[in-house]
Amino acid sequence: MISSGPARAGVPSSRQGPIALLCAGGALPFAVAEAMRLAGRQALIVAIAGIADPGLDRLGAHWLALGQLGKLFALLRRENCAGVVLVGAMQRPTLRSMRIDAIGWSYLFDFLRNVRRSDDGMLRGMLRWFEDQGFPVLSAGEVAPELLAPEGRIGQLAAPSEALAAAAQGFACLDAISPFDVGQALVSFGERIVAIEGAEGTDGLIDRIAELRRLGRLPRSGRDGLLLKGTKIGQSLKVDLPTIGPRTIERAAKAGLAGVVVEAGRVLVIEGQAVVAAADAAGLFLFGLKRDRSQ
Amino acid sequence: MISSGPARAGVPSSRQGPIALLCAGGALPFAVAEAMRLAGRQALIVAIAGIADPGLDRLGAHWLALGQLGKLFALLRRENCAGVVLVGAMQRPTLRSMRIDAIGWSYLFDFLRNVRRSDDGMLRGMLRWFEDQGFPVLSAGEVAPELLAPEGRIGQLAAPSEALAAAAQGFACLDAISPFDVGQALVSFGERIVAIEGAEGTDGLIDRIAELRRLGRLPRSGRDGLLLKGTKIGQSLKVDLPTIGPRTIERAAKAGLAGVVVEAGRVLVIEGQAVVAAADAAGLFLFGLKRDRSQ
Repeated sequence: MISSGPARAGVPSSRQGPIALLCAGGALPFAVAEAMRLAGRQALIVAIAGIADPGLDRLGAHWLALGQLGKLFALLRRENCAGVVLVGAMQRPTLRSMRIDAIGWSYLFDFLRNVRRSDDGMLRGMLRWFEDQGFPVLSAGEVAPELLAPEGRIGQLAAPSEALAAAAQGFACLDAISPFDVGQALVSFGERIVAIEGAEGTDGLIDRIAELRRLGRLPRSGRDGLLLKGTKIGQSLKVDLPTIGPRTIERAAKAGLAGVVVEAGRVLVIEGQAVVAAADAAGLFLFGLKRDRSQ
Repeated sequence: MISSGPARAGVPSSRQGPIALLCAGGALPFAVAEAMRLAGRQALIVAIAGIADPGLDRLGAHWLALGQLGKLFALLRRENCAGVVLVGAMQRPTLRSMRIDAIGWSYLFDFLRNVRRSDDGMLRGMLRWFEDQGFPVLSAGEVAPELLAPEGRIGQLAAPSEALAAAAQGFACLDAISPFDVGQALVSFGERIVAIEGAEGTDGLIDRIAELRRLGRLPRSGRDGLLLKGTKIGQSLKVDLPTIGPRTIERAAKAGLAGVVVEAGRVLVIEGQAVVAAADAAGLFLFGLKRDRSQ
């Protein structure tokens, strides 16, 4: 059974219907929907027009524009949805791309205030809207735990012990920048951290390594370098969980990286079999590192 | 008079000759030499072959290969040098580019151990060599204080108060990553930090912003964004002081940034007049922010 999630006090969900997947861009919505289907969990697919992949039509998606919150809440009530999952890549929207209905307008000010702040701020703000309407917001990891990175070696290759030491240091660095909400990934070469993810995202980060090697700012030859990805301290796990997929591995291989370490249990792996196959084929190690999050 | 610098206990410099500028790449060696000349301070120019600008010949440079430490120490003694300044951009050297003399070999192991660690480690290691030989190592800021960024508004445009708030937050972020020795600069848009400098250096960092705008990951139009540059917590001020020059400003302008904030008294400004002219011409603000370094 799926945990009903920590609904806000006074608004526990008594609804027994499907979980609504509110889908933004990228491949993650497909992966979550597929994992739920395989596990026999009911899902209602709601896709954001202009942002979500048109292929979600195949899954019977309901399409709504960003800002049509009145329509969305009505749909969730009609389908008796037990909860909502926000899933997929959210570009910072422009006002022009939004179609705002009457209910939507009442949320607009709150939205704009949050969107200016940071990704975390924007997403946290959206969580509250659903919970205020009595729909608990769940994480993709709660409704599709099969996608969460396992602990330990994931592919065929073992991670060398120096890589795990570098990973520990790298995670400490990501922890240090957590309050500034910059990024969730970095790349280190040996003990040296050479690149921290910013607005370019993980793909851009990896491409930067390839470019630095081409320019000779990093060693040109030899498989070297570690991509690290995990959650920020205190980030909501309900939105924006870090994600890797087969293309991440292919990109990392092309950039000459030696391996990838992700935070076990808190990073989503899309198309896990393809990810492992890509890592094995390219000779990259892939490792899930459990972090102590007790503080 | 120039401070003789904190020589290591037991090896105070009693020498009265020129300050040796040990020159690596880039424009900084010229700027320091010129500032010393204008101030009537004696300098001995020692250029590292294959790394320093060949134009240093005009200043009567002595050329040595990296690794010829025996020759270097002999030269410093012969000229009765009162101290040494390491100045200019140091690419991580390859063994092949080094010509190692008898004395150099005895330092090689120490060097290699440090070079693997980090820029700071490498440079700190080199400092010790000179001080062990009785040559105090001075900072470029000590021998050419005219180059240090002043406090407050530097160009014609004033920095908006929001930019100074963003700068304070940005410096806090740079402080947080200081222990990891990643970079000395970042770019923020409003309250959002979008890029942290890594191995690509400041030029590469600025180019990344231009690219992110082109891709639409950052607002495409309008002069926006702040470049921030300062020292790491606890970094040696004797080497690798952060530097900006006219090309930094031109690049920032091309990337559509609104302004540049540097740490007053701890960032070197090369060709200050040209820097101010470039900022004024492009409509960028330029500001020196004094940081409390008492902790």
